Amino acid sequence: MVTHFADKFYEAAAAKGAPVCVGIDPVFERMPKSLTGGADVPDDDQHAAEVFEKYAVALLEAVAPYTPIVKPQLACFERYHAAGFAAYHNIVQAAQGLGILVLADAKRGDIGISSDHYANGLLGSPDGADALTVNPYLGMDGIEPFVKLASAEGKGLFALVRTSNPGSDGIQSHELADGRTVAQMVADEVSTFGQSDDAYVGDCGYSLLGAVVGATKSSDALELRRRMEKQIFLVPGFGAQGGTADDVRACFNENGTGAIITASRSVIYAYLNKDGSQRDDWKAAVAAGAQDLRDQITEILA
Amino acid sequence: MVTHFADKFYEAAAAKGAPVCVGIDPVFERMPKSLTGGADVPDDDQHAAEVFEKYAVALLEAVAPYTPIVKPQLACFERYHAAGFAAYHNIVQAAQGLGILVLADAKRGDIGISSDHYANGLLGSPDGADALTVNPYLGMDGIEPFVKLASAEGKGLFALVRTSNPGSDGIQSHELADGRTVAQMVADEVSTFGQSDDAYVGDCGYSLLGAVVGATKSSDALELRRRMEKQIFLVPGFGAQGGTADDVRACFNENGTGAIITASRSVIYAYLNKDGSQRDDWKAAVAAGAQDLRDQITEILA
Repeated sequence: MVTHFADKFYEAAAAKGAPVCVGIDPVFERMPKSLTGGADVPDDDQHAAEVFEKYAVALLEAVAPYTPIVKPQLACFERYHAAGFAAYHNIVQAAQGLGILVLADAKRGDIGISSDHYANGLLGSPDGADALTVNPYLGMDGIEPFVKLASAEGKGLFALVRTSNPGSDGIQSHELADGRTVAQMVADEVSTFGQSDDAYVGDCGYSLLGAVVGATKSSDALELRRRMEKQIFLVPGFGAQGGTADDVRACFNENGTGAIITASRSVIYAYLNKDGSQRDDWKAAVAAGAQDLRDQITEILA
Repeated sequence: MVTHFADKFYEAAAAKGAPVCVGIDPVFERMPKSLTGGADVPDDDQHAAEVFEKYAVALLEAVAPYTPIVKPQLACFERYHAAGFAAYHNIVQAAQGLGILVLADAKRGDIGISSDHYANGLLGSPDGADALTVNPYLGMDGIEPFVKLASAEGKGLFALVRTSNPGSDGIQSHELADGRTVAQMVADEVSTFGQSDDAYVGDCGYSLLGAVVGATKSSDALELRRRMEKQIFLVPGFGAQGGTADDVRACFNENGTGAIITASRSVIYAYLNKDGSQRDDWKAAVAAGAQDLRDQITEILA
């Protein structure tokens, strides 16, 4: 009997102190100089991949006491082709070895057959991540293979519903004839599909199919919270992207569950000064950044 | 001065005889027995990747006389992790070496910074494909980095507008308050953004930002054709997914340009009999499948 993803997550969040997630978005020119020797550009894909892997493995050790889950951004790794992809998979193993859950931020979505390949490649045992972001634009039959695999293997999914980028309004905020916005319609689809089988909902009351909901618009978040009672919200945009404490609070249910607050740059680049120079002990700065994220969210939920 | 993608495509289509595309969606258990020795399951990722690469390189030689462009499905390769990804990149090089354009069917989409990483990794010189499918749900600022790189490097993009899977109606067919469907609204966004800079439109009159429009609903296609005059439509669903000649015709402008008709299974698995057994000379069967696709589309456009 596999443990449901949502139950795994809440056990881990309780152990670490708050429902937070550290985004791992490595960019070569921002890597610690102790790893790059000061180079701004990698020699080749293999060089970038080696630096990213060393960085991420040390970073995982630094943030492990404070975060139940990390979110590597696949784009940063795919930039460096197969070498980058190999580094990504090594980082997944390293995180899981430290007892940290891994949410692959891949935003995949395709028709059913291809979604099944992605699900196997990115989530499947024994090498897969614990959870994955998916794009719902093709419809729920494109999400179904991910959900089936997640249900069988105790994995989780987060469908894009309301994103935090400025241009998202141009698609997601349009009003439908029935009065809902596009994002609210997608929320209803995700909610219905995510509860369509009892096995999809864990003992904690949340579905294995969660939702990405940006923290930059608290009125949006409140309405989406109402529509997706059993979805865990993955909330990017805290810190660097401008989300406030009120915006974050709106993503949680009244009992303080139902959302995972993500920060990336404010933690993983905590060693960079405003002028681009670097603090000496980068791992201590990253650890302090992760502790600060956890403590801020703990305070908001208090 | 780089040549615009649409101009490159129409030159290639004229040389090969029709605006068709062969989808490369390798699945291990369907590979020719001469490559797998009859095994249904690969020994490991490396084994699958080696078989896929041998298969695709031979397949490219077989289809080269008949198709201007091929469309590898990234999901099939990502299923086998870094080894699969390496095989994918080798296949891109092999196709380009044979003078075939490559459209990476990756359906990527993210916020701007991450889209820039994807664009560099999947389209950027010297290892990138010639074109890429992208998902517009995050909004046009998520598409912009792809478009900028494509404009600078003579590459093309195809944004998902109307997909051919049965569940697509659940998202894309909802009616907006202004009377458009969700897909029509996305079409208008793609059209506006794809013509927002003169450099985005080639000498042939088409934009580097095209649209994926499934061939299974000809009434949809006619309306979308009207809304996206300068978009090349990438049309999946011919053959195996049920699109008819009329459905296909509706995707073209009156002069017979403006669409690329894609087939995958009917070409790349032309050696499989209905009972799953294989014809002996698989490459000849694939070549005949590609020729048949080209001849069918030539006839529809005559």
